Amino acid sequence: MPVPADPSATSRDFTPLRGLPGRDAIEIVDQTRLPHDWVTLRIASADAAAAAIRTMQVRGAPLIGACAAYGFALALRTDAGNAALAAAHALLLSTRPTAVNLRWALDRCLRLVLPLPVSARADAAWREADAIAAEDAALNLAIGHHGLPLIEQLAQQRTPVQIMTHCNAGALATLGLGTATAPIYLAHRAGVPVHVWVSETRPRLQGARLTTWELRAHGVPHTLIVDDAGAALMRQRRVDIVLVGADRVAANGDVCNKIGTYAKALAARDNGVSFYAAVPSPTIDWTLADGDGIPIEERDAEEVLSPALGAAMIAPAGTAVANPAFDVTPARLITGLITELGICPPGGLRPLFCT
Amino acid sequence: MPVPADPSATSRDFTPLRGLPGRDAIEIVDQTRLPHDWVTLRIASADAAAAAIRTMQVRGAPLIGACAAYGFALALRTDAGNAALAAAHALLLSTRPTAVNLRWALDRCLRLVLPLPVSARADAAWREADAIAAEDAALNLAIGHHGLPLIEQLAQQRTPVQIMTHCNAGALATLGLGTATAPIYLAHRAGVPVHVWVSETRPRLQGARLTTWELRAHGVPHTLIVDDAGAALMRQRRVDIVLVGADRVAANGDVCNKIGTYAKALAARDNGVSFYAAVPSPTIDWTLADGDGIPIEERDAEEVLSPALGAAMIAPAGTAVANPAFDVTPARLITGLITELGICPPGGLRPLFCT
Repeated sequence: MPVPADPSATSRDFTPLRGLPGRDAIEIVDQTRLPHDWVTLRIASADAAAAAIRTMQVRGAPLIGACAAYGFALALRTDAGNAALAAAHALLLSTRPTAVNLRWALDRCLRLVLPLPVSARADAAWREADAIAAEDAALNLAIGHHGLPLIEQLAQQRTPVQIMTHCNAGALATLGLGTATAPIYLAHRAGVPVHVWVSETRPRLQGARLTTWELRAHGVPHTLIVDDAGAALMRQRRVDIVLVGADRVAANGDVCNKIGTYAKALAARDNGVSFYAAVPSPTIDWTLADGDGIPIEERDAEEVLSPALGAAMIAPAGTAVANPAFDVTPARLITGLITELGICPPGGLRPLFCT
Repeated sequence: MPVPADPSATSRDFTPLRGLPGRDAIEIVDQTRLPHDWVTLRIASADAAAAAIRTMQVRGAPLIGACAAYGFALALRTDAGNAALAAAHALLLSTRPTAVNLRWALDRCLRLVLPLPVSARADAAWREADAIAAEDAALNLAIGHHGLPLIEQLAQQRTPVQIMTHCNAGALATLGLGTATAPIYLAHRAGVPVHVWVSETRPRLQGARLTTWELRAHGVPHTLIVDDAGAALMRQRRVDIVLVGADRVAANGDVCNKIGTYAKALAARDNGVSFYAAVPSPTIDWTLADGDGIPIEERDAEEVLSPALGAAMIAPAGTAVANPAFDVTPARLITGLITELGICPPGGLRPLFCT
């Protein structure tokens, strides 16, 4: 259906993914159609779930994890034998390389069902996917509560508090309030005046298409900028804090996130602006000592060459394109990580999680 | 006319602006139509010249200066009285606020014609515009020769030399080889293998639309990236040198250039990549001690919301937009300025130019 002209007319509890009561399908919002159309799709197989992730109808590290878990559960309805388990796991894991939530969710489901009798596996996997989804909402809320005081503190010096974010680490990327957006939504609900600078996030424009959409739906004041304007705004003292999400965080606190995050961290450092990444624990890859080992997805040239629906190509036909989708922000540039257990310096992950 | 599919079929000496022999008009290339169409327009009045600059059919600091000079000369054909001089000067000066070449060229023409009899002014102004255009080509060439050894030196360690640029400080921005591109073209002609990373340069996409176009026409290997990918490439050691242009440089070496230049300079600094701005002297504003006094043009929201010809809006209708077109890179982040007199550290402008 077309998006209502007045976003306040839409439910504030819109969610980008739901398990359907019959346990035979999930419903997702096709995020490639936003902000123009709110289109839901029924996904009834692992193949369909994999396609939705691969084509970015479903995107955002936490949402990808939950979608993959449901896709795994759907596969088990057809065949829950060991070979089928392995095939479904491999299929879903192959969809996107960078967000570690995908592997985390799939491994969790696989580990759970493997010891069970084949007949019990599909139901157990579905319940586990439900649990992952419910936990994600709780993780968001905890991150929101830990991050809220950062904003409240800044509000004592200036209102509205000027927050910059990048890409969409919002409700549309999760099953709850979002990761980077959770403190923002809680502050807004608590009456703390906030204003969000939304960087458009080329090439896929998740900031322009998705973050503006959901901030608008929640009534949070915001302004859209091109990605390159972020540093200039910081230099002009028009930003108090940068809040971003993460696709994979190494044990040392190096943060892999949407391409452009590193540039924002550099600008924040150069201007004394604090820089926080919101990091639910499923996004932490404890197997990696630092961010250098994180696989960076290289995506199609087409994404760069055709910047928006119906757009003409922006460069001569045949132009070579490099399109890395993520970058790594070294821990040294990060003020803190906001996790569900609290805020820690980037080097403080292991002590905080007692690993 | 449509651009030929094979750019090598176009003249390598294409120029974006020519004074016509009758001295009653100039011919410009409508750069808003590139890379899709090569359309020339006849400009026969100061009003038309002002409109071409304002709508960015003509853009790039040096080209804006030359176009304004011709526009001023065209005005004088109709009325060369003192009031008309002042009006033409004011009209053309009001078109764009940031590039100082505009004021420099107009002041130069005005100073020249003011002492002359009214009847001699129009011809004198035209000759001065011709001189400005010819000098610009010479400035480019001198910058090219001073910058070339930087590339040759890097070629001793790695080939192709990996050069990153931003926006279009190329032939299409000048009357010659371009500013930032001049050393690149000379290196290419000398057989030094180079490869150029072209950042697309949102919102107007001058990198994607214009720099790729002219590098292709000159046969220089290049790859297009989104602006935010620049920092990641530097962190991956895939860039040897950053070469950018400038719209206005303060006496202390602070460089005002297309939005995003500052972010590239920060990334270069963080990764030990040398960062040079190509600066012909008409771009230096000796009246400004530092970059803080440079007026930054704020452009229309539409540029951000509609990223390419025919594109759908990228954000919900009514989304607030901030669209600063330029930023200031502080001198401390700049390795050197490549001027027509040689290369100097950013603090070395006054000694070099003996001012």
